[in-house]
This record gives sequence, C-alpha cells and structure tokens, in this order.
Amino acid sequence: MRWSRFFLYTLKETPKDAVTPSHIYLVRGGYIKQVAAGIYDFTPIGKMVLDNIRAIIKEEMDKAGAQEVMLSFITPYELWEETGRAKKYGDELLRIEDRKGQKFVLSPTNEESVVDLVRNYVKSYKQLPVNLYQINLKFRDEARPRFGLLRGREFIMKDAYSFHATRDDLDREFNLMQETYEKIFSKMGLDFRVVEADSGAIGGTGSREFMVLANTGEDDIVVCSECNYAANIEVAKRNHIKKENPVKTQEIEEIYTPDIKTIDEVSKFTETPKDFIVKAVVKKAVFDNGEEEIVVFFLRGNDELEETKAKNAVGAIDLVDASEEEIEKAGLIPGYIGPFGLPSNIKYIIDDDLRMAEELVCGANKKDYHIKGAGLLDANLLGNLTIYRDIAKVKEGDLCPKCGAPLKITKGIEVGHIFKLGTAYSEPMNATFLDENGKAKPFIMGCYGIGVSRLIAAAIEQNHDDRGIIWPKEIAPFVVDIIVGDVKKTDQVEFAEKLYEDLVNAGVKTILDDRTERFGPKIADFELVGFPVGVIVGKKLKNGKVEVRDRKTGEKFEVDKDVVFEKVMELINKD
Amino acid sequence: MRWSRFFLYTLKETPKDAVTPSHIYLVRGGYIKQVAAGIYDFTPIGKMVLDNIRAIIKEEMDKAGAQEVMLSFITPYELWEETGRAKKYGDELLRIEDRKGQKFVLSPTNEESVVDLVRNYVKSYKQLPVNLYQINLKFRDEARPRFGLLRGREFIMKDAYSFHATRDDLDREFNLMQETYEKIFSKMGLDFRVVEADSGAIGGTGSREFMVLANTGEDDIVVCSECNYAANIEVAKRNHIKKENPVKTQEIEEIYTPDIKTIDEVSKFTETPKDFIVKAVVKKAVFDNGEEEIVVFFLRGNDELEETKAKNAVGAIDLVDASEEEIEKAGLIPGYIGPFGLPSNIKYIIDDDLRMAEELVCGANKKDYHIKGAGLLDANLLGNLTIYRDIAKVKEGDLCPKCGAPLKITKGIEVGHIFKLGTAYSEPMNATFLDENGKAKPFIMGCYGIGVSRLIAAAIEQNHDDRGIIWPKEIAPFVVDIIVGDVKKTDQVEFAEKLYEDLVNAGVKTILDDRTERFGPKIADFELVGFPVGVIVGKKLKNGKVEVRDRKTGEKFEVDKDVVFEKVMELINKD
Repeated sequence: MRWSRFFLYTLKETPKDAVTPSHIYLVRGGYIKQVAAGIYDFTPIGKMVLDNIRAIIKEEMDKAGAQEVMLSFITPYELWEETGRAKKYGDELLRIEDRKGQKFVLSPTNEESVVDLVRNYVKSYKQLPVNLYQINLKFRDEARPRFGLLRGREFIMKDAYSFHATRDDLDREFNLMQETYEKIFSKMGLDFRVVEADSGAIGGTGSREFMVLANTGEDDIVVCSECNYAANIEVAKRNHIKKENPVKTQEIEEIYTPDIKTIDEVSKFTETPKDFIVKAVVKKAVFDNGEEEIVVFFLRGNDELEETKAKNAVGAIDLVDASEEEIEKAGLIPGYIGPFGLPSNIKYIIDDDLRMAEELVCGANKKDYHIKGAGLLDANLLGNLTIYRDIAKVKEGDLCPKCGAPLKITKGIEVGHIFKLGTAYSEPMNATFLDENGKAKPFIMGCYGIGVSRLIAAAIEQNHDDRGIIWPKEIAPFVVDIIVGDVKKTDQVEFAEKLYEDLVNAGVKTILDDRTERFGPKIADFELVGFPVGVIVGKKLKNGKVEVRDRKTGEKFEVDKDVVFEKVMELINKD
Repeated sequence: MRWSRFFLYTLKETPKDAVTPSHIYLVRGGYIKQVAAGIYDFTPIGKMVLDNIRAIIKEEMDKAGAQEVMLSFITPYELWEETGRAKKYGDELLRIEDRKGQKFVLSPTNEESVVDLVRNYVKSYKQLPVNLYQINLKFRDEARPRFGLLRGREFIMKDAYSFHATRDDLDREFNLMQETYEKIFSKMGLDFRVVEADSGAIGGTGSREFMVLANTGEDDIVVCSECNYAANIEVAKRNHIKKENPVKTQEIEEIYTPDIKTIDEVSKFTETPKDFIVKAVVKKAVFDNGEEEIVVFFLRGNDELEETKAKNAVGAIDLVDASEEEIEKAGLIPGYIGPFGLPSNIKYIIDDDLRMAEELVCGANKKDYHIKGAGLLDANLLGNLTIYRDIAKVKEGDLCPKCGAPLKITKGIEVGHIFKLGTAYSEPMNATFLDENGKAKPFIMGCYGIGVSRLIAAAIEQNHDDRGIIWPKEIAPFVVDIIVGDVKKTDQVEFAEKLYEDLVNAGVKTILDDRTERFGPKIADFELVGFPVGVIVGKKLKNGKVEVRDRKTGEKFEVDKDVVFEKVMELINKD
C-alpha cells in the first residue's frame, strides 16, 4: 500500500474522553472514529487488523471442526421469553419494535438463536456433536461504555455453541476449545493466561477465561508463583491452613468495648491479630424476582469480601450496600455484629476459612460489647442456618490451592470465555434429541466466546510504549513501513520502490510512506501507528546506507543497502 | 467436507410462504432458516456461498483501488437529521432509542455515516479522490418482506462511496465502478444487463442498475433487439416518430358522445385509431412536505402511464389513485377530461409523444362531449402551464432511442446500482474540502451498491430447474459432490475417499456424501442443493465404472474409474 493513496490520517490530539492507551492510540493512529458512546467506525487500517484477527480465529475454529454460520443480528423477543432472559437480562439488552409493533432484540449473545436453529434440524444423537460458530455483530447497551474498543456497545464477537449427547462429550469439546483458544491467542503473539472463572449471567456448570495480561486490565487474576494455577479473583481459591491464635483465652467471655467498632480498633483493644477477629459485612441482596433481603457475611478481619463469590453464595443477581438505617431496622447493631445470637430471621454466610476456627473475637450483637475466646467448632451454637462458603478475596501471599506456594495478583483483560452450559438453555427451550434408546433428552451444551474487536484493544494494552502501538507482527496491519526521507530525491524513491516491490512479492505486508511529509512526522507516525519494522531510506543512501528499526526493542541498524531486504526478513522471522 | 459431519439438512416440504424458486430451494436445501419475516439465519453452507460472493466482490473492489471500512450498524439519528432523511426516509428506516433515550437508526444505507467519516479526515483536494466500501449488515423495515433473500429486512450489502474534487473525476470513477461491477457479475457466472435507471430516493444526477436476467424478476427491463441499449422500464426511452392520423378532420369540432368514455368506446365511436385518442389519467400526487394535489396526465390512448416517470415529472414522492369524488371536486368530469379548457388550477402533464401531435380526439371537459381534429401544435391553446414530459411506459415493439430497432421487454432482478450523487449529501452536511485556490467546496460524490445476500437468490432465480439449484461453479459452496452409493461397501468408500483427497489437494471444493442414506435421497440432495458436478461411486465400480454427472446439462458420463479425476476436471474447466 502506498500511504499517499491510503485513507489513513493520524491525529495529534488525544481525544478528551480517552484514558487507556489502546483508546488513545486507536483514535490517534487513525484506526477508529467514534460515532457515539461505545460505537465506532473502522477505517481501512482498522478493518485490516480486525480481518487479521478474524482470519486467525476462523482458521483455528475450522481446524477444530467447528462450522461457521451467520445468525441474524435482530432476533425475536419471543425467543428470549422462552428462556426467561427477556426479563432477566437487564438494560444491556436493547429491545426494539418494528413498524408493525413486533418486538425484537439486538443480539448481545446468541444462545437462544442457536438453540432455535439446532432444534429445527437435529433430532437424533447420531447428528451430534455439532459446534457452530460465527464472527458477527453484537450490541450491549452498556450503562458506561468506555475505554474505546475495550467496553463498547456495538462490537464484533466470535461466539460458538456446541451440542452434545453426553456430559463426557461436552467435556471433550470444552477441552478442545481451550486448546484451540490457546493456539489462537499464541498465534496472535499475545501473553495470556487461562483462568478459572465465574459463570456469570449466562449460567452453566463450569467456565474458564482467557486473560491478556496488561497493567490496565479491569480484571484481577490470581496466579501461582510456582505451578500453573490461575483464576479470576472472582473465583480464586486458596489453601486453608489451621491457624492458631497466639493470644489464648480459656473461656468465652463478653468484654466491654465502648465505641470500639472497626477491626483496627478491636485488634488494638483486645491485643488480638486481625485474622482472629470476625469481620461482619452487611449487604442488601437483590434477587431476580426483584425481592431484596439483608444478608450478613462473616470473614476474618484481614480478609475482604469478594462480591461475585458473595453473590453466588446467596444466589443474588446483585449486592448493594445496606444503609445504617436498614441495618438497624433488621435488628442489627452496627459495629457489634457477630455470629452468635443474631436475630433468627437474618441470613448469614461464614467464610470457609473460619470453619473450625477457635479463639476468635467477634461482635456480641449487643451495643458496646464483643465476645472473645469464641470458637466456631460447635455448629450448634449457630443453629441450623449456618452456611460456610468461600466468600473472601484472595490476597497476594495467600497460598496456592494446588501446590501451596504463594499466590500473586496481576491484571488481565478478558478476551475469551468458555462455558459448560449443560442444559440451561435447551431445557427451557424444549430442545431435545432422541438418544440411543429413543428417549427425548435436552441437548447438553457448551458455549465459547472471543471478543474480536476487544482483542484489538487488548493487544495494544499489552503492546505499546509512550509513543504508540507496538503490534505483534501476526496481527499488524502492515509489518514493514518503508519511509522515504525526501520524496523529491529520485534515488531514495527508486530504492524504496524496489524494496517495496521485493517485500510485497515475498508476501510481506508492507506500506510505503511516499507522502510529501517531512521526515520527523513520518517517524512519529511509524511509531504511533505501530508497524513492527521500519526502513528509513534517507540522506545516507548516498553513502550506500539505510536504517532499519525494530519498533519493539527500539534498536536501529545501519545496514548496507544491498542487504536491507535480508535484514528486514531477519527481524520479521526472529521469533 | 464429509457430509456425515456437516451441519446440512435438506427438507422435503416447501415452506408455505415460499413462492419463488430461490426462496423454496434455499430453505429446502438447508441454506437458510427463517427467524422472522424477512430475517434469516445462514447455516454453514449458506455462509459458504455468501463468503464466495463476498470474496469476489472484495477482490475486484480492492483491485479498483477502493478501500474497505466497517461503518457502525447503529448510527445516530442526528446524522440523519443533517440531511433531512430522518423524516423523509419513511417507515423502512427503523428508529430506535438506547437506554438513555438517545435516538439511533438501524443503517439501511450509509451515506450520512461515510460523509461524517470523510469530513473528519479529508480537508484538501490533495487527499482526493477516495472510494470507501464495506460489505456489511443493513436493515430495512420493508412493509412486505417476501421472496426469501430477494426482499429481506436484514441483509448484507456492499456499499461504496466515492469522494471527488471535480465532476469529471466522479465520471471517471463511475465508469470504473461500472467496469468493476461487470467483472464481478461476470466472474460469478451470471447473465446480466447494465441498464439506465431512476435515481430514486437516494437522489443524484445519474444512475445505472445491474440486472440479473430471470423470469421471476420484479423489474421490467427494456432492451434493444439490435444495439446495446438497455434501461429499466422506469426510465426507458423510445424513438418518437411523427405519426399521421389516417382519419383526417378539417376543423376542430365538438362531438356529442353520450356515455362514451373509455378509449375503446371513443375509438370505436369516432373510428379513430387509439394512438390518436388522448388518454387522461388522474392521480393524487403526494409531496414530501405531506401536501397532496390532483394532477392529470395526458398520453396517447394506446400508451400506459409509467408511474416512476410520472412521479419524477411532478416531483412527488408518491402517486395514488384519485377517487371519483375527488376528481369531481377538482372540477373534472370523469370520462370527458381533455387538455383544452381544463380548470385553470389543475396541474397537468402531457406525454412527449403528443408534442406537435395533430388530428387528435380528446375529452371536451364537458359531460357527454369530446373534441375531434384537435392539435397540440399551438401551445397557446393550453396556456402557460403546458408541460411535456416522457411519462409513457415503453411497450414491446416501440423503437430504440439509439438505433431505431424494435425494443423488447424482459424481466430482471436488480443486484447492483451505481449513482452519481453529486453534492446531494455533502452540501447539507457541510462536508467540504479546500480546492487548489483554497476555496471550500462540497465533496462531489458517487455511491455504488451491491445486494450481497440478494445475489444468492438472484443467482438461483437464474440458475435452477424443477429439482433444485444449479450453482454457477464460481459461487457454488462445493463444486463436486462425491456420492458413495453404499457406505457399507469398502471398495466404494475407499475409491471415494481417494478421489476426495485428490480433488481437495487439487484445490477443488468437494463434499463427500458418506451418509448412511439410501442412494435415491443422495441423488435428490445432489440436485436440490445444486452442486455443479456429481460423481456416483456405486455398484458399477465392481466393473471398473463410475458415473459423472453434469448438473447443468443433465448429462451422465459412465467413465473408467482410472479417469474419473480427469473427467471431473474437464467438466469443471469446460467454460
């Protein structure tokens, strides 16, 4: 491509709402143009990156035996009523009406559509398994679209859905998809981790996320410093070891603790380490039928509540802070809430790490009093409602549940998510097949998503510096940028044209910067737009020298003009 | 592809709403599944055909120097307000609101979006010309979606938009796009015509349509029997020759014609050929500001009014029949309306073919009276309002405007349309560039559409028989179908597998019908799904014979098993 004829215009100004590097550089580099909040046009160079990513995904999905379809973007509301998601999905689901008043939704995901397609054709176990995928438009009416392509409203998703006769076969496909995803992200040159994940609103029985590691990631990932354990913090586990309180107490004892409420205050006053103080977190749980209920979560004083775990523990769709008034109305005394002697109508959950714990200090459910020397050994103390769950947020330094080594916390961007759906969609939609005995059974399903346009942003979040993008060459729009220092100098133009031709003939995606721009802006654009290799054909050509730059390492090589092609190929193929 | 593992299921039943061959065969052949009226899912094989068509279009558009973008599907309503189309476009434009009440439309076409994109980046004539295209989703909320993919609501369109500094440069690009389209449709193996066309609601100064010839086409095309003249009947011209009425009259004379109203009656009564009787057609013209007005169209008694021409002649957005009551209220006398002595407030248009015509019989605007011997020579007779326009529908046998040979009328399906838009969009959107003298001028634009999903249907309308589709091989999902007569016979399976491997290695798209179906249904599916070449590996293999079938000609070749590959390649390459 000759830049002088290419619809690619870089901008000097940072868009005012852009804070993340990918958002800034995608707009400044001329890849995308905002149309409305969370909605973007892709320019020719933006479309090229999208196509590169799409091609890698298609190749690997096809190799894995998945078959590409194109489901409608506008889907009937009535399909969403079959699964109950028409109501449950919330405001991200944009519901529309056509000219005749028929209701539709803009597809945010396509479980309903694909089940409807498959139940139309597949009647027997002999037709299974099948895995259908698409790389297609999606719309989610995010409350706060932000970060450019990272959290847009209109976006491209690769969504795949598999159908099986048995759970074992689903497990096989789930593992195959994990391998396929690993190949896809490796091929794109990304540093990523596969992590255990929450199944979220889509439902199902097991899921894994694919996280591109980046400081700007919205997700916290827990990774083991020794083994391959990795999990989203929303589901991360840790090793529970029995801890002994260095401060021994003989008997359970009520102590007077006027105005002593926070964990810090109680720890200081009772001279007890924080992990032996029981922290109470009060939340208002919101359920999908719209009901609300006060719930108390108990955990060690040095732990924090993990909201997703807590939500799943009570089966709520949301947890919101309870006001002091609501807390008191429920019969609780803020600052003095503890597991013993709670009002009997209050639901509470105790963190797993407190199971069998002894020598604890906790609120006495009585103004100005705590209890010390308490143990949770005796379940009777707590009555029948006692539920232990893993509700604490794993901390840096907690121990790996697999190998016991210390865990670390890092940031990641979710670019893929695979789920075992089981019969969560086939059952309500009455989508069945006849098994070997002629008995109708609901399909056992998996689903597998990749955020295609989001991957563009994630790749940049991981690969950039303060001057611009550093594309992994596998997804770069052009791998080589040949910069003509001065387009009025015939020798420079001729050399650059010849090199351009040679590279294109060798199958290298090359852009020839033949614009009448000055040298400085051309170099700045090379760095901003982010081509992996730059070739600068400038003044030194007279002395037989050309400069070759490695965008990633910043290395500059002054090369004899006769070996420029070889040097470029060496850089392209070096890893 | 092995059919036994392929998600492709044919149906015996014809869908009850399907009347056109493409609709019937696309559904029965398992290519598409209806989701709602005018909205379809594409199965894997449907997606393959779509991708074949998309690839041909992309290749030729890229070669022509156009650059691919991806504009957002959801576009802000406010962009559509800039051009006034937000109101004008009618109910096909689906207007929606997001969760915050901001208004958007589902893109039916993208002139506004692309002008917004280009005005953001292009400031100087030096950056012109540019031609941006996309192959992307569109939605038009058709009042009567029908005929499957021929008139859907959700569909894929290739839309391109070019921007120029001068009209000459637009003309150059317009011609280049015409050539490109001719290459595209030729490459797809389609029989098509390029025709002069009406510019319709998109506006602009000139346009051509690309029509796939098919008996089931919705459009009437006028083609010359001798030269290359071709036009949509909506704009088709004809040679006007001065005709002489064989029945001579000396003077204008009022004649008493009680209850004689129709052209037939008047012709009989006055013994005058129909082409010398003036036909009056009364319509109610609807304008884009909502106003309505009675208009009378006069044409020769043997001609019919062409509605699009008539609409354009008065600048109306619609013409509807006027009721007898409305006609009378306007001061007109049904059955006796003529061009002389009309109420002065009535707008009327006279067909070009009547210009200078003499010896006419027409209504006298007086109950039970006609006038004979009337001539339109003297414009004064008619007053200042006299407007001559081409408003008659060209008939079979009318004479070619280019060469004078007789014209024929044939049916076509519009699959492409190219327009010279001029400044119809850039002006209202204030999209300008600085010309060589530093003066701001609006972009001069062209736009170029191809109905991509519609092409699938058009190809079938042109290429089918009573058993199914006959794909042109260039867009066929698979070119060869190898049918194993009995999958329990090892020799048949082994031979078929070997041939399959050889063909795939030779780059031939091949499907191996290894299903446990009987032979009959396999042949029926070969014909219904429409693969160009069939290879039947059956009982005769024992005698060293294999049957090769040409789907299009119906020819069956019994071939020695050693030369099957060669025979298949011969059929593939024969034209």
